[in-house]
Amino acid sequence: MTNTQITLIQLDNYGPWTVTPEPRREVDLQTMQSRLYADLSQLFGNRDGYVFFSRFDNMIAVTNGLDTDDHALIQESVANRYPVTISLSVAVDPAPIAALGTATDQLQDAGSAQDKDRRSILRGDPLADADRTNDDLHIAHFDVNDATGQYTDELNEFDTFINIEQGYAELMRYMRRAHDSLSFFVGGDNVIAVCTPLTTEEYEDAITHVREAVGVALKVGVGHGATAQDAGMDAKHALEACRHDGRDVVIND
Amino acid sequence: MTNTQITLIQLDNYGPWTVTPEPRREVDLQTMQSRLYADLSQLFGNRDGYVFFSRFDNMIAVTNGLDTDDHALIQESVANRYPVTISLSVAVDPAPIAALGTATDQLQDAGSAQDKDRRSILRGDPLADADRTNDDLHIAHFDVNDATGQYTDELNEFDTFINIEQGYAELMRYMRRAHDSLSFFVGGDNVIAVCTPLTTEEYEDAITHVREAVGVALKVGVGHGATAQDAGMDAKHALEACRHDGRDVVIND
Amino acid sequence: MTNTQITLIQLDNYGPWTVTPEPRREVDLQTMQSRLYADLSQLFGNRDGYVFFSRFDNMIAVTNGLDTDDHALIQESVANRYPVTISLSVAVDPAPIAALGTATDQLQDAGSAQDKDRRSILRGDPLADADRTNDDLHIAHFDVNDATGQYTDELNEFDTFINIEQGYAELMRYMRRAHDSLSFFVGGDNVIAVCTPLTTEEYEDAITHVREAVGVALKVGVGHGATAQDAGMDAKHALEACRHDGRDVVIND
Amino acid sequence: MTNTQITLIQLDNYGPWTVTPEPRREVDLQTMQSRLYADLSQLFGNRDGYVFFSRFDNMIAVTNGLDTDDHALIQESVANRYPVTISLSVAVDPAPIAALGTATDQLQDAGSAQDKDRRSILRGDPLADADRTNDDLHIAHFDVNDATGQYTDELNEFDTFINIEQGYAELMRYMRRAHDSLSFFVGGDNVIAVCTPLTTEEYEDAITHVREAVGVALKVGVGHGATAQDAGMDAKHALEACRHDGRDVVIND
Repeated sequence: MTNTQITLIQLDNYGPWTVTPEPRREVDLQTMQSRLYADLSQLFGNRDGYVFFSRFDNMIAVTNGLDTDDHALIQESVANRYPVTISLSVAVDPAPIAALGTATDQLQDAGSAQDKDRRSILRGDPLADADRTNDDLHIAHFDVNDATGQYTDELNEFDTFINIEQGYAELMRYMRRAHDSLSFFVGGDNVIAVCTPLTTEEYEDAITHVREAVGVALKVGVGHGATAQDAGMDAKHALEACRHDGRDVVIND
Repeated sequence: MTNTQITLIQLDNYGPWTVTPEPRREVDLQTMQSRLYADLSQLFGNRDGYVFFSRFDNMIAVTNGLDTDDHALIQESVANRYPVTISLSVAVDPAPIAALGTATDQLQDAGSAQDKDRRSILRGDPLADADRTNDDLHIAHFDVNDATGQYTDELNEFDTFINIEQGYAELMRYMRRAHDSLSFFVGGDNVIAVCTPLTTEEYEDAITHVREAVGVALKVGVGHGATAQDAGMDAKHALEACRHDGRDVVIND
Repeated sequence: MTNTQITLIQLDNYGPWTVTPEPRREVDLQTMQSRLYADLSQLFGNRDGYVFFSRFDNMIAVTNGLDTDDHALIQESVANRYPVTISLSVAVDPAPIAALGTATDQLQDAGSAQDKDRRSILRGDPLADADRTNDDLHIAHFDVNDATGQYTDELNEFDTFINIEQGYAELMRYMRRAHDSLSFFVGGDNVIAVCTPLTTEEYEDAITHVREAVGVALKVGVGHGATAQDAGMDAKHALEACRHDGRDVVIND
Repeated sequence: MTNTQITLIQLDNYGPWTVTPEPRREVDLQTMQSRLYADLSQLFGNRDGYVFFSRFDNMIAVTNGLDTDDHALIQESVANRYPVTISLSVAVDPAPIAALGTATDQLQDAGSAQDKDRRSILRGDPLADADRTNDDLHIAHFDVNDATGQYTDELNEFDTFINIEQGYAELMRYMRRAHDSLSFFVGGDNVIAVCTPLTTEEYEDAITHVREAVGVALKVGVGHGATAQDAGMDAKHALEACRHDGRDVVIND
């Protein structure tokens, strides 16, 4: 069984900051948000975690392998280099959505995202090393079949984007509802989902659902490991096997 | 009438690069994609343009005020600092979606996104200075009413994200279909749309549609100008007027 | 005759910030300082200026072609994205050192670098477009003869660094004293100097002085132009001519 | 006794890359060099190491606590995100300069810095965990007495820079010659030196030498620890004690 450690990352009092004393230049907000995400990707990634940008002022990380001190260091590094601070809340559960739920409750208990006095919260209980196994994380890496030929080289970029986005939205809601899974668009035509152990049939059903609902054809490689990096790289290799063999689903043992 | 200059930005041969010779670490791809976007935001933004991240390997910029030399400089700067190159295609049209369509056709004519020999294309005809006016761009800045109270402080982050994403998807498709507009999620609960001149009723209809279709309540500030920065900042101030006055739609003259 | 526009860039109240409330992690200070310098290099560079890192909390830029609004935009962009603000002071003079002197006086008049109330000063008079010529800037690009063979592949890196540093220091002081010039180490074995118009003999004398004083052998390419980018790229090409022809001094007409 | 682990970081074939096929824009080279340094500062710093920029194409890191796998990860991350690759060579010795000497020899044995076929070398033997102690690193953090009052608020920035640079150069050569130490300018008026255990008198002698040779007055805080972060932060606190007590030398036990 999986044991997913999720860290919710929330910028403190960000909404008000973006318009105080006056609305700030949009290109600067975009630059800062993106660079903060990129830094967090490296900071968590350096310890084999993954970070998903979600809404940029709220981000979701898969952090098996990082303890409280690791989280505190990341928080301190951001506070030293950015005009904003981040709050972090960690929780663990076999089901990804449940871990995120607990992480969110813990943070909401500490105060509103727009509470001007709530800064740099650090809450929650990471997984103890002694309790960690190679089956803790199951990660599925989906992509759209022949996205370049079907969309990028054929439609204008916005209509391509609309198609890819519909595929993502349908998959995201299905995986959440059917399997308590969290799925994230990561650019191009790629979606990465954090799951519990699922069978080939269950992945085929998800793919069929998306194809029937919105006409987008997906394939998926699935890996597992003790960290997001291990499970995620395992999934990338499984996806390469899909491409090579012409299969829709490849699950690495 | 508007006259929208759109630049399509496409990373050359990116899909193959991400898996050659082996799949690359996801956290590094995320870092590179995000930082490239942030740099483009500054490079175009330094000349009053706006860039939207879209799918990260394909991005859309609003570039009224930038000429061919400006585009060439941006392309050169990226080639000097990143392990990938970008192709740029510029087009102008009163309707945003039509400008993007022409920009896309121009680029597709030059070769596939995954053509290993297609690098650093620069195509298209920017708007001549003599033809530019203060009405060239109309930008609408939407946000979700009381997102913090309704979602961020109440639901787990993924369910908040699902709600915001549904609101964005519905708005994006409606604005595309009804008004040839391009709409982009820019983080938090914000969507920026590039439009033709629309009336208060037309914006109210869009808001009503989204509320009835998916239950997400939006408000919008609308501005105009000769550049994305001018129109966009004008829209931000109009949105502040919405917040202050409790209105759903404010269009600055 | 040259007409050098210099902008002094100074971080506001930085010393106290680095130790308040406690000393901050050195790696974070280094990261922030370096990235701020990199951003300024792009922001000024996007308008054909050059920036030299100098002491990182005080930097020197060559800004022919940038007006007051351009400076204000750069200042605003930094304030939106960093936990510190910058003050900018602009001055123009045929002699680079005199321009810097005036820029410094203007800023010192506005308050101390560690005055906790002095923030985001913007002072000075950029060169009017009507007064600009292709001879405004003379830039000399020096490098060490066969640095790789003589030093990098032979000595340990610190002793290589000591040698290169001695060469730089000797050149810097000589050019300042003899020619009112500003010289900056820019990495590797390269030094870029901002000069008045000098003859081949004057450059040969500088090179002879450095060789006799500290045993470091230099060559130099010299260019000119209306902007730092034009003059500096002209100098790079002249330096390539030195390498190709085996000459010590090449001055492009 | 100290046991200093030094990693020499060298960009592969960088000189030729900067001028192939043509000389590249200086502002882009500066941006890339600085951001690479900033990333390395975070990557090594995330594991309590320190990185010094030195010549930017060759950098020196203090890496007690990082093993071979840690180095390989950093190398891979850079290769995934930059247009250049880095070679790393690790060595350990009680005397910092000797560790750097061994690290350099190892790298030079693998090939020239401008050997177009030498890429991503990783050599050397990090300190085994079992052999590490809290006395492994002694770090001294020097700064100039009242730099703001004496220089920054009085002289033009270049003459301030010349003074600070002379103080650094004199200190660097003295500490290298007398104590096998490596000293690095880190911005502002700060120099960080990696040392063997020295007495208060030995630090006072260094300070006296610099004051008599070039008229620059320094003070120093000294710390120690198992990692650069521990020793360096200890030194920063000792330097604060200097400021507070008006002393020239404070060595933390």
